[in-house]
Amino acid sequence: MPDISKRGIAMPSSPIRKLAPLSGNAKSQGVKVYHLNIGQPDLPSPKKALDAVRSITRTTLEYSPSEGYQSLREALSRYYSRLGIDIPQQEIIVTTGGSEAILFAFLACLDPGDEIIMVEPCYANYISMAVAAGIKVKTVVSRIEDSFALPSPDEFEKAITPATTAILLCNPSNPGGTLYTKDELYQLRDIVKKHQLFLFSDEVYREFVYSNEPFLSALSLGIEQNVVLIDSVSKRYSECGIRIGALISRNPQVRAAVMKFAQARLSPPLLGQIAAEASIDGTEAYSRECFNEYKARRDFFIEHLNKIPGVFSPKPEGAFYTIASLPVDDAEDFCRWCLTSFRDNMETIMMAPAAGFYCTPGLGRNQVRLAYVLNVKDLGRCIELLAKALEEYNSINR
Amino acid sequence: MPDISKRGIAMPSSPIRKLAPLSGNAKSQGVKVYHLNIGQPDLPSPKKALDAVRSITRTTLEYSPSEGYQSLREALSRYYSRLGIDIPQQEIIVTTGGSEAILFAFLACLDPGDEIIMVEPCYANYISMAVAAGIKVKTVVSRIEDSFALPSPDEFEKAITPATTAILLCNPSNPGGTLYTKDELYQLRDIVKKHQLFLFSDEVYREFVYSNEPFLSALSLGIEQNVVLIDSVSKRYSECGIRIGALISRNPQVRAAVMKFAQARLSPPLLGQIAAEASIDGTEAYSRECFNEYKARRDFFIEHLNKIPGVFSPKPEGAFYTIASLPVDDAEDFCRWCLTSFRDNMETIMMAPAAGFYCTPGLGRNQVRLAYVLNVKDLGRCIELLAKALEEYNSINR
Repeated sequence: MPDISKRGIAMPSSPIRKLAPLSGNAKSQGVKVYHLNIGQPDLPSPKKALDAVRSITRTTLEYSPSEGYQSLREALSRYYSRLGIDIPQQEIIVTTGGSEAILFAFLACLDPGDEIIMVEPCYANYISMAVAAGIKVKTVVSRIEDSFALPSPDEFEKAITPATTAILLCNPSNPGGTLYTKDELYQLRDIVKKHQLFLFSDEVYREFVYSNEPFLSALSLGIEQNVVLIDSVSKRYSECGIRIGALISRNPQVRAAVMKFAQARLSPPLLGQIAAEASIDGTEAYSRECFNEYKARRDFFIEHLNKIPGVFSPKPEGAFYTIASLPVDDAEDFCRWCLTSFRDNMETIMMAPAAGFYCTPGLGRNQVRLAYVLNVKDLGRCIELLAKALEEYNSINR
Repeated sequence: MPDISKRGIAMPSSPIRKLAPLSGNAKSQGVKVYHLNIGQPDLPSPKKALDAVRSITRTTLEYSPSEGYQSLREALSRYYSRLGIDIPQQEIIVTTGGSEAILFAFLACLDPGDEIIMVEPCYANYISMAVAAGIKVKTVVSRIEDSFALPSPDEFEKAITPATTAILLCNPSNPGGTLYTKDELYQLRDIVKKHQLFLFSDEVYREFVYSNEPFLSALSLGIEQNVVLIDSVSKRYSECGIRIGALISRNPQVRAAVMKFAQARLSPPLLGQIAAEASIDGTEAYSRECFNEYKARRDFFIEHLNKIPGVFSPKPEGAFYTIASLPVDDAEDFCRWCLTSFRDNMETIMMAPAAGFYCTPGLGRNQVRLAYVLNVKDLGRCIELLAKALEEYNSINR
């Protein structure tokens, strides 16, 4: 039997999805599993999007252009314009989810062995995509006790080597929920300029900012040739399944290279583009409702999470995740145990062990990432389940 | 300004799509362009698929499992069973088109620098995906004068080095239209076994076999642990745009590695899966009609193509492409000229220069790849346009 590749072995399992077989087993036993592990909003997608899908008149489900339909790119351009960012449709390449935009950015801007700096904890799939692209991840560490604030410029400088090619930032951040301040972003801009790096800015959560600080896009920092923007309609319109994202760059060399990778996979999903395009204009009321709902969820969830003995979570300023530290030594073991052994009235919770969001071994071992994407009633039940599970787990294990 | 990556520069432009801006210009001048360049069938998708999309009742367009919906995998399993191949749903991973299945196979089975052997001319995006995955392509050459028959075992043996990890075959083949015989496949099997290689078998055109030889799947060769099957609903159901393919392997290590790459991109497209699932069962009459239509197109197109002075095309036994040699020195220049300068009654044709389907520089320079995916009337007009264009081009250039 031939051997699989070293990178196939090195590829990490998704901390968000790797426990899925255990949750599947629990469900097949009739157990209700509350999913705090994945940023899959329970909110409906915009009615306009569903209507657009239901009323397709085309008879052939044909390829679209590799860069996505022009009408979708124009709608995205109008959306950015409403945010005060001028992005012509020619600078937008539609991708198969934000995931593909990340992979394309890595492939087009970094060669195998090149280094990219990420702030850990970071979105776990960044690390996976880096393995797929053969690039090296170096990290600067943000800390739960500092509410995952951006590490100092000194720490970035220390991480930079001659092989450093890019910095990747998620703002507001998944998993920490941090909104980076203007000062932090300006410091980052200076580093990017000084070392002539790429700045990949994943801004898929820009609608979900709960603090009073304004959100600042990386495209507003005056380093436009260095910036590659990663975007997605997944979270904004509760459309994770349609796999529509975008890669945006003012740098024509970057776009030309990305287009070649885009051509190699032919086109982004046709039906998803139809849903996405219908979601962009005239959905302001929908977006406001979603925002209010998430803010209420955050306020409720974080307050009650911090009331569980031994649990600590900073108050996230954006996105819809938090990283919480738990009174356990090994959060992954606890997460597994919740799925295999803990039942309260035939219900349990699924969480993502946070260690998979860190690169430095040992960091985040007692932490979990929680997505507050359920309604307040369900979140209340999750708090109850978590409190009970911790008590039972610790009574067995001590 | 930071530099893009070396692989971003090395990445080839798709020969199928790189002339798209020229065809866009022609269209904006009111010129009708007949597309022979791309395997985008004009046939309708199955009505059942369109109905399924139009009648979705879900209100949230949520993530699907990374391996695809179980119901879709079960439908695929039934489909293979009807073909006489026993593939349980657990051995099927749904991918974002066949394209992603190819990329996943490369990433999971080969490391950067590892070598893969392809038969050239080959589907151009194989070469692009190899650049994306950082693997080395070595080729054995099939020849137009031999109707692109499989090169001899000796030629494969000569191409094998200690770095060789896999062989990739497309059967029936794009672009040559070759159906590989039982003897040829058994010879290939012996080589795969002897050197313990992976055999990636792209069988997306298995429905389109026009000769009397039976189609033999790589999974029927008795080397199941070595085989990775690449599949797609794109061509079978005229659903190229929905981006639903599959990677199938009996090798649990391969599946485990592929699943990690699949998790990193979260999930295949939700809406496409709905369309694909609805297409699989109870569409036998649809498939028969499509087959008869393509067979009629092939018979008509190849006969008339060979009547144009100086043009030669072997008779393809499968798929819906052919490679034709033209009485020109530089087919790419001729293809460009057709889009920029040739007009007959405000109409022209777009073809894919075949050089982009070869790896060895210089091969295929006077050849084009033609997809006979238009109706017979339009194909007749294409023949007329090609004959006139060749005459005019050669009268100017000689």
